[in-house]
Parts: sequence; C-alpha cells; structure tokens
Amino acid sequence: MKLSEEAIGQIKFNEQGLVPAIVQDAENGQVLMMAWMNADSIRDTVRTGKTHFWSRSRKKYWMKGESSGHVQEVVSLHVDCDGDTLLVRARQTGAACHEGYRSCFFRAAGADGAWMATEQRLADPNEIYKKK
Amino acid sequence: MKLSEEAIGQIKFNEQGLVPAIVQDAENGQVLMMAWMNADSIRDTVRTGKTHFWSRSRKKYWMKGESSGHVQEVVSLHVDCDGDTLLVRARQTGAACHEGYRSCFFRAAGADGAWMATEQRLADPNEIYKKK
Repeated sequence: MKLSEEAIGQIKFNEQGLVPAIVQDAENGQVLMMAWMNADSIRDTVRTGKTHFWSRSRKKYWMKGESSGHVQEVVSLHVDCDGDTLLVRARQTGAACHEGYRSCFFRAAGADGAWMATEQRLADPNEIYKKK
Repeated sequence: MKLSEEAIGQIKFNEQGLVPAIVQDAENGQVLMMAWMNADSIRDTVRTGKTHFWSRSRKKYWMKGESSGHVQEVVSLHVDCDGDTLLVRARQTGAACHEGYRSCFFRAAGADGAWMATEQRLADPNEIYKKK
C-alpha cells in the first residue's frame, strides 16, 4: 500500500495535527471504532499495513493490537470530500474494543431511551490485557 | 425512537460541546459521512427521526437534506465504549455527499499513492443544490 507525501499533505488535520479515522471491518462492513491519527501514524499505518494511532489521553503513538494482539490489517484507506476524516477498511483479528466486544459501538439507544448493549462480548478484557 | 436526558448526559462531548457522529447506510453497511452533533442536534435527531448536526464552519444547526432533499432516516443510534463517538445507522435518500457521491469517502489511496475516486457520482452537485 502506498500514500504519497503529497496525498498526506492534502489531509486537513485539526489544530492539534490530528484527523479522526473510522475503522470498518472489510469483511462484514461493521463499524469497529474511531480513533485519531497524525501524519506520522498515517505513515506508520501505510508502511506496516497495520493501523497506528495517536492517543490524545496518553499522548503517545499506539498500534492497534500492540498489547492485545488484536491487530487490524489495512485493506484500503479512504479520505472524505472535505479531507478532514479518514476511513480505514481493515481485517480485524479478535475484538476491536478494549472491553472485549467486536465493535466499540456495542451499545445502542434502547426502547426505554437508555444505552443498551446489543452485542455479545467476544473476550474477557482481563484476559486480553494480561500485562496490566 | 427514544433517548433519555440521562443517556445524553452519558455522552462525552468535547470542549466545544460536540461529538463526532458517523453515519452508516443501514441497508448496505457503507460508511456515508462523519459530522458533528451537540446535545440539541442529538435531541432533534431523536425527535424527528432524521439526522441533525452542528456545522462548525457555519456555526449553525443543519438537517441533512434540508437543501438537497437527501435526508437520512435514523434506524438506530449507537455510542462507543468511551462515550465520545456516535454511530447512526440510517436509510439514505440520494447522495450523502455534497459532491454528489453516495458516500463522502469516495476517494481512496490508489496504487500510485495518490487519492483516487473509487465511486461513480450519483448526481450533479449543481442540480442537487439549486438554491445556491
């Protein structure tokens, strides 16, 4: 996979130098997560073929799956019309969500107006992150 | 569709009072767009069943399709594990993108590393926005 420096330059990063990246399961279309990339994490994603992000809370780079093994192999990388949001289509190993669900969007507005889990957990978070 | 004030209160809005909302085609799973909502546009979305957003550039509320007729009927509303991103599954009339494409993510990184359109335009933007 390739992405030229010119193409990276066409992305509109926010004032913190970040762009939101939506990750979608390339196999079944499920939206898995949204996280933030900067120019260097985009370069790492393209170079390695695995998704890399910038953590705003921890102020560090991270590769998805670096502690859990639940990596995302990039199938295609898309940019939106305004150039300020990315979409990554990827093959997900295991669970995208650190809570052990396939997708981070496992809760939906239920009939009573409260958020309700609509998916089954795939894995126990304590098992996924044994290092912690 | 219902969403309680308590459930809205569980959403983590950013320092501008906004949360990113990904819109996905409920019929074919295509990721259509990403835009920003505040608490009032979430309430309007739930009340009317049609997506409403806050425009950061124009500093105003907008209903998707208000000028184009290309509305989005909400099928389900999801929140992610961190509570700071929403996912709306919706039935899209016409084109989600103001450039006339079904999805705003119509460009992908091509073999030469440049962004390339990977979809056909559905509509001429000049025809969609006749008022402009």
